Amino acid sequence: MADSATRKRRGGGRAGAAARRGAAVIEQMPWNPPVNIDRPVEPMDQEGVEAIHEGAMRILEEIGIAFYNEEALGILREAGCIVEGDNVRFGRDFVMEMVGKAPSSFTITPRNPDHTIEIGGKTMLFGNVSSPPNYWDLEIGRKVPGNREMCRNLLKLTQYFNCIHFAGGYPVEPVDLHASVRHLDVLYDKLTLSDKAMHAYSLGKERVEDVMEMVRIAGGLSHEEFDATPRMYTNINSTSPLKHDHPMIDGCLRLARRGQAIVVTPFTLAGAMAPVTMAGAVAQSLAEALCAIALFQYVRPGIPCVIGTFTSNVDMKSGAPAFGTPEYMRSTQMTGQMARYYGLPLRSSGVCAANVPDGQAMWETSNSLWAAVQSGTNMVYHAAGWLEGGLIASPEKFIMDCEILQQIQRYMQPEISATGPDEIALDAIKAVGNDGHFFGIQHTQDRYTTAFYQPFLSDWKNFEGWEAAGGLWTAERAHHMFKEIIGSFEAPPMDEAIREELAEFVERRKAEGGAPTDF
Amino acid sequence: MADSATRKRRGGGRAGAAARRGAAVIEQMPWNPPVNIDRPVEPMDQEGVEAIHEGAMRILEEIGIAFYNEEALGILREAGCIVEGDNVRFGRDFVMEMVGKAPSSFTITPRNPDHTIEIGGKTMLFGNVSSPPNYWDLEIGRKVPGNREMCRNLLKLTQYFNCIHFAGGYPVEPVDLHASVRHLDVLYDKLTLSDKAMHAYSLGKERVEDVMEMVRIAGGLSHEEFDATPRMYTNINSTSPLKHDHPMIDGCLRLARRGQAIVVTPFTLAGAMAPVTMAGAVAQSLAEALCAIALFQYVRPGIPCVIGTFTSNVDMKSGAPAFGTPEYMRSTQMTGQMARYYGLPLRSSGVCAANVPDGQAMWETSNSLWAAVQSGTNMVYHAAGWLEGGLIASPEKFIMDCEILQQIQRYMQPEISATGPDEIALDAIKAVGNDGHFFGIQHTQDRYTTAFYQPFLSDWKNFEGWEAAGGLWTAERAHHMFKEIIGSFEAPPMDEAIREELAEFVERRKAEGGAPTDF
Repeated sequence: MADSATRKRRGGGRAGAAARRGAAVIEQMPWNPPVNIDRPVEPMDQEGVEAIHEGAMRILEEIGIAFYNEEALGILREAGCIVEGDNVRFGRDFVMEMVGKAPSSFTITPRNPDHTIEIGGKTMLFGNVSSPPNYWDLEIGRKVPGNREMCRNLLKLTQYFNCIHFAGGYPVEPVDLHASVRHLDVLYDKLTLSDKAMHAYSLGKERVEDVMEMVRIAGGLSHEEFDATPRMYTNINSTSPLKHDHPMIDGCLRLARRGQAIVVTPFTLAGAMAPVTMAGAVAQSLAEALCAIALFQYVRPGIPCVIGTFTSNVDMKSGAPAFGTPEYMRSTQMTGQMARYYGLPLRSSGVCAANVPDGQAMWETSNSLWAAVQSGTNMVYHAAGWLEGGLIASPEKFIMDCEILQQIQRYMQPEISATGPDEIALDAIKAVGNDGHFFGIQHTQDRYTTAFYQPFLSDWKNFEGWEAAGGLWTAERAHHMFKEIIGSFEAPPMDEAIREELAEFVERRKAEGGAPTDF
Repeated sequence: MADSATRKRRGGGRAGAAARRGAAVIEQMPWNPPVNIDRPVEPMDQEGVEAIHEGAMRILEEIGIAFYNEEALGILREAGCIVEGDNVRFGRDFVMEMVGKAPSSFTITPRNPDHTIEIGGKTMLFGNVSSPPNYWDLEIGRKVPGNREMCRNLLKLTQYFNCIHFAGGYPVEPVDLHASVRHLDVLYDKLTLSDKAMHAYSLGKERVEDVMEMVRIAGGLSHEEFDATPRMYTNINSTSPLKHDHPMIDGCLRLARRGQAIVVTPFTLAGAMAPVTMAGAVAQSLAEALCAIALFQYVRPGIPCVIGTFTSNVDMKSGAPAFGTPEYMRSTQMTGQMARYYGLPLRSSGVCAANVPDGQAMWETSNSLWAAVQSGTNMVYHAAGWLEGGLIASPEKFIMDCEILQQIQRYMQPEISATGPDEIALDAIKAVGNDGHFFGIQHTQDRYTTAFYQPFLSDWKNFEGWEAAGGLWTAERAHHMFKEIIGSFEAPPMDEAIREELAEFVERRKAEGGAPTDF
């Protein structure tokens, strides 16, 4: 809590001591993606839903979206859209017909089929923080550029925690790796350190094609097997307002043609890249996403597509983005209503503006994660590890977030609110009467090991017990846990021949120069 | 974040420096209790609601509740209940008839009528932490017994923050004041430092009568005026399982006869004082609360009563109470369903098990506050300042919690999700097109000052800006704010004659010996 230099020294010292002591293995919940049993929160009535839809359609019909991608312009012209220069206007009938072809639910099968995820319906999936250029941990105590070791450590957390269901983008950008070959090294790390569903950045054809090939190799799949069902996905942002850039569309078209999944997530900060009003920002976001999804459905009808929301607001004093705000929560819920209207799975995020894993980080993140619950979100991006509006990845924050994710997983178990005779427990209440307690009775003994959520990071000791155990604040405890997990991490099994094939692919592509860096 | 001695020194040093610098006045939202526009989260279907009701009724009919209060036993015998020793069994027809007499909504009018609160319907009200015996702040850096100055400071926060709508119990127990006269001094402090709705502990007739008299004096009211409408309230806990102690019932009867409001909140920790199953704990809690409410309605039909929930679970490893858990959230939502079934206003709480105002404190508190939203809670007790399962009050936690409370207040403003033409903003989107931004346009200029939530404590600066401003973690920023608020606090106006009358009353009652301390 004092200055960062002090934090660094003490953090490191304590962490080292804890690692040497060897703490207990972390008891976590099993892999079991939550099924969202709550009725969504719906801030708009049907009229509001229709008004947002009408707004989105009129944006597409009357204003249009710029596609900086010649191939897309050609396809959309062929499809009957009105193309003028880069600008494309879409008839609502076309958009709605195409969007109607997208499945409401689909699966992604990673190299470990036990980690297959179903995206859509009421399933809620959590992914690691993606793409921060910088890293912070309590031992370093300051913001530093990401490197490969940090990236690998965060990938280990991604694999370790059962409440993380898919591996998003790079959990931190390893800027020590040259941009031309970074995707090769990181995907090698990702595919060997994790067996969860993988992501490819749509940043040029070489990267996209390389990642698809590596995911295919890692899965031990033929090209036909790879193409037969989604094995991975990409996520693109539009360039708001009302633009789609070349590499994002190009990457999606490549994945679409090979049957892989696509997430389209406009980043509409109200008051900056979108109207200052949330309804306007949501309508614009929908227009940007729907037209891209329409394009992909025209190219490959039925290709899995997810509609993403990243609508938040700026701080009107400074222009800085804000996250986990009341406006963020409502716009996420509103987009949830619209995703159900369009029959598309929804992606939102776990986000905060805080710079360190403190109280603010947790209320902002809690707000955004509960908004994901309330909106019926299917894929929660950045669900663990995000700080500073996505500019920093932090392992302590990652572990703290996982405690919240596990609680959401537990919260969604219907047995908590079961009301059968065994749960009403009249006989137990009668047996105890008004002069006893329930600790020792059979009804309690039969259930106490599984009755309640057991945290791995929350400290429920009283103050004196907590103080005697070192008086560690949550971020400090998370730091020690980070060291322990990394220190004892075991990678998921991989056939040695496959590992060699992956390594050879990386070497060959590096020798070929990797990918151009002029994007 | 390091050891407490370091925290103490540094906390104090920085806080002192900040106070000398003199920071900006805090910009907070105006007094405007939120109206909960969200549909409640309902984990039980109608069958589940009926099963819980049936369970509660059978507890009352077949097992009974002990009333350690002769007067209550006499009244209940007269009312036709089956009284055997201290145990009373209640017919469901009687209970439901009596509970049906309680109003679904009522007001409490404090000495400042602008701070009148309506309890019931969709209104959400927040109160300060109540009754911790201990205190912690970043400057002291350890857990210490509460004293009058700490209590006064927390009362100043209670008055200062517009998002705190009622003054609950003592925000910390001032154990430097003798128990026989503590209520006199603290009520004098409460009534002079705050003009919000007041609470009386039901801890013996002298305390209750003294507090009613002091609230009457502070309001400048005749006895008839005081009796005519609720001016204050009491909150009682049952002694679970299935007991009501003498002073709690006595206090409620005294308030009921003078038309004042009553909150009945069983404290049913599942696995300890209640069944390990949440449905059982909720059914027992309801039985304990409903029979007391039935008694008060029999004595004074139509007296305002609130049903409280304090159902959580214990850590089955240690027996320690846990708060803000998934089970806590669900039981609060379940009790919300039942409160609506009985037509009674609901009280729940803002709670955590954390010992310091860190990340854990904030995710547990967020969980409990969002559960209050989801359950349709009307009165949120302990909404600001609670640590260590209610054993510690903390000013930093108080201020951090208020940031969340303000966000809930903002979240409930329907204009965020308004969908009229001005909010869809098609013209603005058209004007900006795909090659501009929304910062400078008229649509933004017309709205930017009120478009978004403005935090008072959250720091939305980027890392470098945050670091340049001292790199303070949230609890540190809250500590500085605490010092500033206390340093510049101005008590609400009070007529000097009334203040003198209050002071004379306190002196007289002290001279008479105050209240017995053998409770």
